[in-house]
Amino acid sequence: MATIVHFSALSTTRLCLKSHFKGLARSCESTFILSGSRGPSQSLFPGRRWFSRGTGVRFMSHGTAGGQSAGRRGALAISGAAALTAAAAVAGLLANGNHFQRAEMATRISGAVENREQEAEIVERCRRFMSAPVTDISVLQSRKEEMRTKMELLIMETQAEFCKALEEVDGGTFKVDRWERKEGGGGISCVMQDGKVFEKAGVNVSVVSGYLTEEAAKQMRSRGKVLKGKDGKLPFSAMGVSSVIHPKNPHIPTVHFNYRYFEIEEEDGSKQWWFGGGTDLTPVYIDKEDAFHFHNTLKEACDKHHPQYYPDFKKWCDRYFFVRHRGETRGIGGIFFDDLDSPGQEEAFNFVKSCARTVVPCYLPIVYKHLNDSFTDEEKDWQQIRRGRYVEFNLVYDRGVKFGLATPGSRIESILMSLPLTARWEYMQEPDKGSREAEMLEVLRNPKEWV
Amino acid sequence: MATIVHFSALSTTRLCLKSHFKGLARSCESTFILSGSRGPSQSLFPGRRWFSRGTGVRFMSHGTAGGQSAGRRGALAISGAAALTAAAAVAGLLANGNHFQRAEMATRISGAVENREQEAEIVERCRRFMSAPVTDISVLQSRKEEMRTKMELLIMETQAEFCKALEEVDGGTFKVDRWERKEGGGGISCVMQDGKVFEKAGVNVSVVSGYLTEEAAKQMRSRGKVLKGKDGKLPFSAMGVSSVIHPKNPHIPTVHFNYRYFEIEEEDGSKQWWFGGGTDLTPVYIDKEDAFHFHNTLKEACDKHHPQYYPDFKKWCDRYFFVRHRGETRGIGGIFFDDLDSPGQEEAFNFVKSCARTVVPCYLPIVYKHLNDSFTDEEKDWQQIRRGRYVEFNLVYDRGVKFGLATPGSRIESILMSLPLTARWEYMQEPDKGSREAEMLEVLRNPKEWV
Repeated sequence: MATIVHFSALSTTRLCLKSHFKGLARSCESTFILSGSRGPSQSLFPGRRWFSRGTGVRFMSHGTAGGQSAGRRGALAISGAAALTAAAAVAGLLANGNHFQRAEMATRISGAVENREQEAEIVERCRRFMSAPVTDISVLQSRKEEMRTKMELLIMETQAEFCKALEEVDGGTFKVDRWERKEGGGGISCVMQDGKVFEKAGVNVSVVSGYLTEEAAKQMRSRGKVLKGKDGKLPFSAMGVSSVIHPKNPHIPTVHFNYRYFEIEEEDGSKQWWFGGGTDLTPVYIDKEDAFHFHNTLKEACDKHHPQYYPDFKKWCDRYFFVRHRGETRGIGGIFFDDLDSPGQEEAFNFVKSCARTVVPCYLPIVYKHLNDSFTDEEKDWQQIRRGRYVEFNLVYDRGVKFGLATPGSRIESILMSLPLTARWEYMQEPDKGSREAEMLEVLRNPKEWV
Repeated sequence: MATIVHFSALSTTRLCLKSHFKGLARSCESTFILSGSRGPSQSLFPGRRWFSRGTGVRFMSHGTAGGQSAGRRGALAISGAAALTAAAAVAGLLANGNHFQRAEMATRISGAVENREQEAEIVERCRRFMSAPVTDISVLQSRKEEMRTKMELLIMETQAEFCKALEEVDGGTFKVDRWERKEGGGGISCVMQDGKVFEKAGVNVSVVSGYLTEEAAKQMRSRGKVLKGKDGKLPFSAMGVSSVIHPKNPHIPTVHFNYRYFEIEEEDGSKQWWFGGGTDLTPVYIDKEDAFHFHNTLKEACDKHHPQYYPDFKKWCDRYFFVRHRGETRGIGGIFFDDLDSPGQEEAFNFVKSCARTVVPCYLPIVYKHLNDSFTDEEKDWQQIRRGRYVEFNLVYDRGVKFGLATPGSRIESILMSLPLTARWEYMQEPDKGSREAEMLEVLRNPKEWV
């Protein structure tokens, strides 16, 4: 059996895919540098980075701005040049006028330049998405400093990066559904079904807004904080990316991740906001190396932000993904957190961004490692039984699913796309002692530390 | 395609099975006559009926009193003769003494005779069950007049009659698990899995007792009546038979039934009791003749008790088995009722008994009719998708399942044996216009009157 360490050397295809990953990681980084979370010195001349990205950029044919990529890139180049020209003009202006006037003007002009740059960036970023974002690009541009814009761009990017990585390994194509919610907002559901590698792969983005009752607002927040609304109603904005991938081969685990952001406006106009999310793995058989790789990748991402994040969110994950009536966790966990509203909004967003970026490096190496593992009918049956437990968790306990099913106007197909294509329930199924199936159950009944 | 009317003439096997049904119906009737709900003139000499049943009686090898059926029948014959002798003795005694003494003594002696008869009847009835009843036979004998005894015998009988009828058609054998609940009571779960005809057939009896909190008691009752307990705790007794049958052939519908009885003792010692239940059909394709037969059989059983029962309970069934997030009923319904505590306990029990007796005549003719129907892969796929919806209803909405999963000490395998062996979830599956699948959906979205 191949190992994670050596998987890239196994075949030409894999080598190519490895370099694809490097490319992904690079473009991912570039993309996120542009999202406004770094210092101003880096974002003042972002055009450079676009050019340095070279020919590696793929344009989505179904993106809003798709179809004329060369032209667009040309437009961007002009925009980049214009930025430099504008900077020179600012310098000229600074030669006249008094100190304060000059300073004010410089700020205004450099702000205008920055704005134009950022607007161009948003258009360029959107081009790489699986679909036009839910919120109109002009609206995103007009409120580009707001967290809901930054988050919408992040979740769209996460969806696109992950879908592309999965398409690459499967050879299939995601079906992309862009849908609208009557009450406000909508989403983009990407599903690949009955592929070569994946039985069902769903990656969903949703961006909704509207009004919540105080009761509903309380339910949305796991700590159940009481929020006061105007006449009992609270304007809210909620968005997230979520995904469940069920592979065909029982030696490739199921993965799930979800990163989300909520904003609620209280009676006095103040905004309550928080992030939630997590990534967790549900293997059919235990592979300690996979478990270590998965958890360690998450731990490294968490440790950059706070030493307590990984241990706390790992425990939270085990607690949350617990099928109580079976006395089993759903899988081997990962991280899970909710109600994250500290230390600050930018810091929390940066942490979420780090997590979202780990999805591909957490999961794809495991997929490649087991891609050609052979399996028996019995192993497939055991996978189907574990799929049944997955359904039980999702329909009985998952807060997101429950909230979605109970919310009028929800898009049911997007909520339930997390369910596997096939599942099985056998009466009194109990693995033989000492079997690999029993080993799996033992771990589910007694969650372990993997790193 | 065969019809219900002519199904018995199709083959020798079917003819044999038809006569089996006649036998079933007969033995069913005899059995229930003995359960104490008819007038005293009929129950005074019940021994006769046992003898007249002839050689058609099958004894379950796994019943409590099994293994020595001939001997047992001999014992009963003696018991029957003893009943006649005792009656003669009563007549002799009546020749002496005054009017009041004679009347009192006659009552006492005839009561003693009746008691012995009824005790023998209980033993004999238990012999036909799939397993020894949950409550010890001596306990049942000591409280034979109580409703919980009558109901326990009825649900055990219903389980046995239905299991035997299914074994006959499938050729397979039910696995019988007798289990105990630490907190009090237990159950008997009969499951046949991956049979010739049935993918999964489960028939479960449970008889539990213990203490409920006031909150739990309120939840148990659909009208949410507030009940006062001693220090907030209420002694309760709950029992029921429930079954879900998932056949392999997509032209044979899934059936579900459940009949249950609750008793709760309030602070002042008074007892609150009620019955609940229903039988409903979930076909994969619409067959109007089947639908008529199923509903009409239920209607006839209801009409014997109250003209409003069928129309009211048919509507209740459509309302209850509604997969809200899909906007579809689970199947084509049947009847459903809860909180039945009128007009009186005996009358309500008699109605429940009639319903329980209709299970075999409602369903088995439909099974036989479609036994040899051929089907395509596409039809099987559609069945699997409908099975997925079944899982959704059971895990998300079913009150019994929810209550069971949330109750500590519940036997999860018995609660979840209603889930199909296999199920499927396809993203955005929508049948072609004008197809038989679309016809099915149309009915689920707009419940019909079938009789």
